Amino acid sequence: MRKIFVIGIGVGDPDHMTIQAIKALNQADVFFIPDKGAEKAALRDLRTAICERFIENADYRTISVDVPQRTSSGDYLASVDEWHSRLADIYARLFEHELEENEIGAILVWGDPAIYDSTLRIIERIRIKGLALEIQVIPGISSVQVLAAKHRVVLNQIGESVLLTTGRKLAHGFPDEFGSVVVLLDGTQAFASLAEPDLDIFWGAYLGTDDEILISGRLADVKDKIEAARKLARQQHGWIMDTYLLRKSDRGRC
Amino acid sequence: MRKIFVIGIGVGDPDHMTIQAIKALNQADVFFIPDKGAEKAALRDLRTAICERFIENADYRTISVDVPQRTSSGDYLASVDEWHSRLADIYARLFEHELEENEIGAILVWGDPAIYDSTLRIIERIRIKGLALEIQVIPGISSVQVLAAKHRVVLNQIGESVLLTTGRKLAHGFPDEFGSVVVLLDGTQAFASLAEPDLDIFWGAYLGTDDEILISGRLADVKDKIEAARKLARQQHGWIMDTYLLRKSDRGRC
Ligand SMILES: C[S@@+](CC[C@H](N)C(=O)[O-])C[C@H]1O[C@@H](n2cnc3c(N)ncnc32)[C@H](O)[C@@H]1O
Ligand SMILES: C[S@@+](CC[C@H](N)C(=O)[O-])C[C@H]1O[C@@H](n2cnc3c(N)ncnc32)[C@H](O)[C@@H]1O
Repeated sequence: MRKIFVIGIGVGDPDHMTIQAIKALNQADVFFIPDKGAEKAALRDLRTAICERFIENADYRTISVDVPQRTSSGDYLASVDEWHSRLADIYARLFEHELEENEIGAILVWGDPAIYDSTLRIIERIRIKGLALEIQVIPGISSVQVLAAKHRVVLNQIGESVLLTTGRKLAHGFPDEFGSVVVLLDGTQAFASLAEPDLDIFWGAYLGTDDEILISGRLADVKDKIEAARKLARQQHGWIMDTYLLRKSDRGRC
Repeated sequence: MRKIFVIGIGVGDPDHMTIQAIKALNQADVFFIPDKGAEKAALRDLRTAICERFIENADYRTISVDVPQRTSSGDYLASVDEWHSRLADIYARLFEHELEENEIGAILVWGDPAIYDSTLRIIERIRIKGLALEIQVIPGISSVQVLAAKHRVVLNQIGESVLLTTGRKLAHGFPDEFGSVVVLLDGTQAFASLAEPDLDIFWGAYLGTDDEILISGRLADVKDKIEAARKLARQQHGWIMDTYLLRKSDRGRC
């Protein structure tokens, strides 16, 4: 049976690699590297840096995966579904033709494979179609954890819940039954239009990289600063990845 | 200024250590090791295994921290508050007396320091009291990530949120506005009394260790099996650590 390692590699700092991930890299015969165009060059650079630094024996092969554009039809779920289906076909063909029965393939995933990443869903589709695959998932440090670490905060308040959500969802309003909300995938700066009076924000962009930016404070006080920093950075780099924790202010409490 | 590393060490598998955590271990002069009695012997064993395996130079000191019992008064928050205050006093004294001004102390945290752990809150209290400390937090692989990896699932459903919560909160009912709920700190098997008709559960105990147990399936079908496994394991080991993901069944969807 073909074996596939799905390896979390962190979000920018090669030092976030775990020993388990390094061992897996060194066992893999073939790396499947998605090619997502210029915007994601930073991701490709991290992958390259990690392979060069941590793989001891250079006898592996690299297969570049031509990732199609997602057609953005009106129905978000339907367009994701159709895109995953095409990706599953592409990966299935590559696994069949580029990987021998007894070999190990590896896919390097940004951050943690369990957090807003579709690799495992795509592979599940391939298995459902009938290609026998043994899957091993290796967790990686997520952007959410780097955000918290750099701001030196705990995500939850004592005994309380934490909601991980998207900018798209946050745009419908702050879910104020929770003390703490972590937002990923926010292309529209949903934090800036929240009506909630008393929130703290812990914001981070390019976390783990040399370009890391951190801003925190009372949302009302720092939101303009974040918007400005975000806009400038986006212009400079051509792309941005940012995430943030919002929580009700507990100044005075501990 | 004294420097403190708060280092996430994973939840049982030394291979979950990151390169960054290993580098931090090797810079630390003094390790502060909480002594929480017999139940937490497993945690102490992981700490010992990690220090022995990853620290290259044995010229570090180890200070055992005598962790007081939390008085369980009626008011949960008040009793945690009082407990953290006593812990802050204990750590403050140890930092002052056992760590020179230019030295680095380290606290090894189970899993990730940002997820249901109070170390950072306790250290913040020490700083508020006036002891100058430079804090660096090193993220670690969390039980939540190991759970997802071992079950080979993504925590979120496509575009949906994920709630991290406690058994205490879940006992008030399944928060059914979310597709996915991860439960930690459940001493009472709150999953077993959920009325929700159509949930899948992905359950794991002693994740990352040799004693790992994984059970998954439709909640109604597997909850007795989980209860029985949990009870038996708890008897055998004298303690248990388990966590689980609940989500609305999406069989048929992908
Ligand atoms: C498709 S999700 C992938 C998340 C990834 N699996 C993880 O564990 O972090 C992409 C989102 O993650 C967040 N993100 C990823 N890397 C980041 C970084 N280095 N700095 C800030 N945010 C990041 C951003 O919110 C971005 O929109
Ligand atoms: C005080 S919290 C600490 C969580 C930790 N900071 C983390 O990142 O996983 C303890 C809870 O974490 C979960 N947990 C920690 N280690 C675990 C393990 N090895 N297996 C299963 N659950 C674990 C359990 O729900 C336990 O009640």
